[in-house]
Amino acid sequence: MIITMQAEATDAQVDSVRERLESRGARTYVWSGRNGGRACTRIACLEQPERAGEADVAKLPGVVSIAQWRTPYRLASRDVGPPGGRTVVRVGHGPRASVGGKALLVVAGPCSVEGREMLRETAVAIGRAGAGALRGGAYKPRTSPYAFQGLGAEGLALLAQVRRETGLPVVTEVLDPRDVERVAACADVLQVGARNMQNSPLLCEVGRVRRPVLLKRGPSATITELLLAAEYILSRGNREVILCERGIRTFETATRNTLDVAAIPVLRRETHLPVIVDPSHAAGRADLVVPLAYAAVAAGADGLIVEVHPRPEAAWSDGDQSLSLAAFEGLMRGLGPIAEAVGRTVAWGRAEAQ
Amino acid sequence: MIITMQAEATDAQVDSVRERLESRGARTYVWSGRNGGRACTRIACLEQPERAGEADVAKLPGVVSIAQWRTPYRLASRDVGPPGGRTVVRVGHGPRASVGGKALLVVAGPCSVEGREMLRETAVAIGRAGAGALRGGAYKPRTSPYAFQGLGAEGLALLAQVRRETGLPVVTEVLDPRDVERVAACADVLQVGARNMQNSPLLCEVGRVRRPVLLKRGPSATITELLLAAEYILSRGNREVILCERGIRTFETATRNTLDVAAIPVLRRETHLPVIVDPSHAAGRADLVVPLAYAAVAAGADGLIVEVHPRPEAAWSDGDQSLSLAAFEGLMRGLGPIAEAVGRTVAWGRAEAQ
Amino acid sequence: MIITMQAEATDAQVDSVRERLESRGARTYVWSGRNGGRACTRIACLEQPERAGEADVAKLPGVVSIAQWRTPYRLASRDVGPPGGRTVVRVGHGPRASVGGKALLVVAGPCSVEGREMLRETAVAIGRAGAGALRGGAYKPRTSPYAFQGLGAEGLALLAQVRRETGLPVVTEVLDPRDVERVAACADVLQVGARNMQNSPLLCEVGRVRRPVLLKRGPSATITELLLAAEYILSRGNREVILCERGIRTFETATRNTLDVAAIPVLRRETHLPVIVDPSHAAGRADLVVPLAYAAVAAGADGLIVEVHPRPEAAWSDGDQSLSLAAFEGLMRGLGPIAEAVGRTVAWGRAEAQ
Amino acid sequence: MIITMQAEATDAQVDSVRERLESRGARTYVWSGRNGGRACTRIACLEQPERAGEADVAKLPGVVSIAQWRTPYRLASRDVGPPGGRTVVRVGHGPRASVGGKALLVVAGPCSVEGREMLRETAVAIGRAGAGALRGGAYKPRTSPYAFQGLGAEGLALLAQVRRETGLPVVTEVLDPRDVERVAACADVLQVGARNMQNSPLLCEVGRVRRPVLLKRGPSATITELLLAAEYILSRGNREVILCERGIRTFETATRNTLDVAAIPVLRRETHLPVIVDPSHAAGRADLVVPLAYAAVAAGADGLIVEVHPRPEAAWSDGDQSLSLAAFEGLMRGLGPIAEAVGRTVAWGRAEAQ
Repeated sequence: MIITMQAEATDAQVDSVRERLESRGARTYVWSGRNGGRACTRIACLEQPERAGEADVAKLPGVVSIAQWRTPYRLASRDVGPPGGRTVVRVGHGPRASVGGKALLVVAGPCSVEGREMLRETAVAIGRAGAGALRGGAYKPRTSPYAFQGLGAEGLALLAQVRRETGLPVVTEVLDPRDVERVAACADVLQVGARNMQNSPLLCEVGRVRRPVLLKRGPSATITELLLAAEYILSRGNREVILCERGIRTFETATRNTLDVAAIPVLRRETHLPVIVDPSHAAGRADLVVPLAYAAVAAGADGLIVEVHPRPEAAWSDGDQSLSLAAFEGLMRGLGPIAEAVGRTVAWGRAEAQ
Repeated sequence: MIITMQAEATDAQVDSVRERLESRGARTYVWSGRNGGRACTRIACLEQPERAGEADVAKLPGVVSIAQWRTPYRLASRDVGPPGGRTVVRVGHGPRASVGGKALLVVAGPCSVEGREMLRETAVAIGRAGAGALRGGAYKPRTSPYAFQGLGAEGLALLAQVRRETGLPVVTEVLDPRDVERVAACADVLQVGARNMQNSPLLCEVGRVRRPVLLKRGPSATITELLLAAEYILSRGNREVILCERGIRTFETATRNTLDVAAIPVLRRETHLPVIVDPSHAAGRADLVVPLAYAAVAAGADGLIVEVHPRPEAAWSDGDQSLSLAAFEGLMRGLGPIAEAVGRTVAWGRAEAQ
Repeated sequence: MIITMQAEATDAQVDSVRERLESRGARTYVWSGRNGGRACTRIACLEQPERAGEADVAKLPGVVSIAQWRTPYRLASRDVGPPGGRTVVRVGHGPRASVGGKALLVVAGPCSVEGREMLRETAVAIGRAGAGALRGGAYKPRTSPYAFQGLGAEGLALLAQVRRETGLPVVTEVLDPRDVERVAACADVLQVGARNMQNSPLLCEVGRVRRPVLLKRGPSATITELLLAAEYILSRGNREVILCERGIRTFETATRNTLDVAAIPVLRRETHLPVIVDPSHAAGRADLVVPLAYAAVAAGADGLIVEVHPRPEAAWSDGDQSLSLAAFEGLMRGLGPIAEAVGRTVAWGRAEAQ
Repeated sequence: MIITMQAEATDAQVDSVRERLESRGARTYVWSGRNGGRACTRIACLEQPERAGEADVAKLPGVVSIAQWRTPYRLASRDVGPPGGRTVVRVGHGPRASVGGKALLVVAGPCSVEGREMLRETAVAIGRAGAGALRGGAYKPRTSPYAFQGLGAEGLALLAQVRRETGLPVVTEVLDPRDVERVAACADVLQVGARNMQNSPLLCEVGRVRRPVLLKRGPSATITELLLAAEYILSRGNREVILCERGIRTFETATRNTLDVAAIPVLRRETHLPVIVDPSHAAGRADLVVPLAYAAVAAGADGLIVEVHPRPEAAWSDGDQSLSLAAFEGLMRGLGPIAEAVGRTVAWGRAEAQ
């Protein structure tokens, strides 16, 4: 159930509601803030109303109303979340490192970390072009056991090094619940890939760390299932989940996947969590990445995650869908006016101004 | 095969090539124009090279080179078409009535023609908001035989009347090859709906009239199949085909169909024909029409076809996905900056200036 | 609404109910027969209950009860139909020519009619192997306008000739509403192909002739949509509709389509119409046709339609998925025990006995 | 590469080939046996031919020929595997406990282990009806974190107990690589569920234990991807993989998934591994389980895995798709004649004979 407090409710009143609920074994989640100038506090409670003592809570001072969950996902639902409607997730510590606010977050980098030089070269170039974070895979989920599986711990170390050198926050995938702590020690954002969207032990494990999680939609997952996967993470205590649409599997073979661009506005109506788009995996072809990226931002995406490689033709994986450094710079230049047309900014503008 | 003529080739030389080919029973199609300031003429020939006398043609004066078809579709391929790369289709006779050039074409109107008043009210409002043409169904392809099947001939007459009164070109669907002439007498553009994309007798019939054809992608048609359906029309002699992406059928149920936004850039690479998008049928929900329309234009669409109704809640069909007149006006206002960001204009800008 | 009459109701009472309904403009459909030894008559009425005078009808002698339609399809629903539950459709005039009863109907023959000799050779062989009808396309719906479109009227004439010579009933496709009468003059069953499942003018036209219609499911049509397409035919007065599952379009590329084998039991629960399966188009590969045919019969199909060619490697169309004459004979031999295992027979058994 | 030995090759010659390959760091896998009365040994080598010393190996005594891998999957390919063509996997220690041979294996039991009584009641009933193994989930992968997640270790203990009491081998799912040893201690077969088909850490972990693995196809996995997932397990050393088709995700909503019945014959052509079918998850409805099970066996499946519950209406999960004990008995009775029709037997026949 969802408890809404009066605008004038005191912190003590909020605490009192929480304590009452928790005394009955219920877990509670509080969002406080201002919505249109007006103070607003909502308390989410995951226990059954009866067991949580709904009737008693309703009488506590400061409580305006109690509503029931309307959707199978709860903490991900827009019925809760920050009063302004959107969760903003901080990514690393730099000035452009957040997603869900007015500025778009663009994450870029190679499919796989292949070595120090190529990673550094990419990081410098994408940072200059306006990217807010660096992506790069150390643990790679591959369809075939005979394909390159990533550099593993060595790749993590390279990411950590380049992060120190460039100041760019790092996004990298974790595949194994046993690796979560190790990856969290090097990365600013933990990526859960499309193949693992319903890997519940992994979701629970990333739900327990203090790192934002970038959760990719599975190729045959419905939007509701994506939100329920997010709910696994949120309900373990990690409230910083970034959702990512990356294309779904359909009969069309002209593209690797079919970008479900409508998922963006649907998610923005259903959830307070930020939503970004991966045009690289959706397209599977570099020549389509730019128009898909533009479409995603025009439809309301909070950011992008794009595969970029200094020499795509020589990439160890996903070369066909990787932008060159120059092509990425072109994407960022073109993105500015589109972002502006829908009331957003690209971090790039701000970077230039510095 | 495709014959490319020298930049300086004379009309007589072009005619001579055509005559030679046609004397052997081959059908020919010529595109002439300038590409980057340079004159360019290409002749498409649908006969087998050997039967068309390729070796002889290669020796004719003015012929630069002969290439073979690389794709299953031919006249729709970008290997032919206007030298600038894009076919521009005129729609009716008004100043904003074309699609495929710099200005976007927005077609709007009700799912079904329900009566004179609602049609006129809609036409006036959408024209004022910047639409370039009016849509409205007189013959409706419905899933159930018990659903409203359209006003038929009466609906056509109402469309013709409102066209006279407002000057707006009219787009309307034709379902039956026996109706093609009748519909062509009242409409500026003949629509072939998604259910009929592979209805070859209908494609052949609309291929024989002198009216642009708006060809919608079938819900499970690949992009290649859409282009081959266009080829049925083109090869019958009608060179004015407008393609329309309107969503494909997938497992996702949050939307009526899944807008395949990547089809837009794929089609722009594969064909010289204009490509528009129907966000209304893709979404099936009015609240998603605006973001999908923005995404389509950002991805490079040449226009939109949108369902608009003065009172969506009372519409005889597709009310859930119809925009109100006010919402359509809002869409058009928001579209301007996005179009500009990708180097396009909306007719609306020009309309205002008049 | 559906009016159920008393077991002892007289014909005059049934007529009186129909007359009352029809006097108010309602169309009625009557099914009479025995169900478990007990006489049973149901009258379907497509008019709204109020306009059809439900209250008055309920008081007429012999009326037991009146129920409302529970599904969007009506005449196709199992809520009506023959009291025993299954419509049996006669196919031609031979002894094995029916579908929907205990005996399976196997239709076999080439994708396209290519000439008299190959058609006759095929007909003789499949008849000997136990097929109940001959298939062969004279009008072919092809994806590309440059592919072979069938022999047309000449193909029809060949089918008619081979029918006379062999006595085998003929199933052939009709694409154009303008061809329906011409095709009906030569064929025992009119096939509406997958691409035309929602071609309403064609459905209406075949709904007006006195020939069974074989209606194939569209590659992206739901089962409900298939039944609504059947409803177009039934509601025009033609009650002999045979449904055909032939694979739906999915992401899997190992097969041309994905045979939705579950559609068979779903349809048998939802409708009284016979359901057959086309394993050839589902598989797209000859080596899978036999196991898919077995699966279909095991799941409850009332028959099969299979592509067979004397020389598959030389077929003008669909050679990859055509069985040779020997392979077809093998299929028929293997089918017998499976049919028996699910309480069915193959016509073949009876043919042998003659 | 694949090394084929002469029929008369001695064990020492086979060993000598392996040693040569392994001395260069290559992993090898040997299959020996008789094919049509003739001895046959094939050695699979996963190293690149050049690095493994192909030229030298070709000259070793007893080597007939060396072939290269033709498919992305290798150890799963029919190019290797037992000379007779089919791997037979032993399941537990009972007389009916194998899959891949002539006798079908039927695995049955509840979705979740709910308690000792229901598990024992089910086990006794399904064993009597002819099932060869008991299924039951202790760790449940659920879409929502708020759904019942299984009894965990307690569930495992109950399975182990009922196994002891009834002698039925146990199949149960493992979700987390950290649980593999614990589950392997209680179960005869480790199930990797559809959501985890591409969970590579889990695949690697089950590849290291000595327990057969039942690998379910993911809802949007191609057949090639399923075989590559199997390859992860095989290449870690575990050669006992049972594949399971359980329906793919499509647009059709009449069923929970769409059973891809064609996957059965496709897999039987592509791989030597046994293939079973889960009609319960494919259908999502108990009333369709029997016809789908029949279809699967008719199409060549080596077995079934079916959800059965003593009181489906009270099941904690998947009640809608669970058969009652009586319905399961009916399924087994009906299965016999179908199995026989395709040259198979059901363990049930043998059980009766005991």
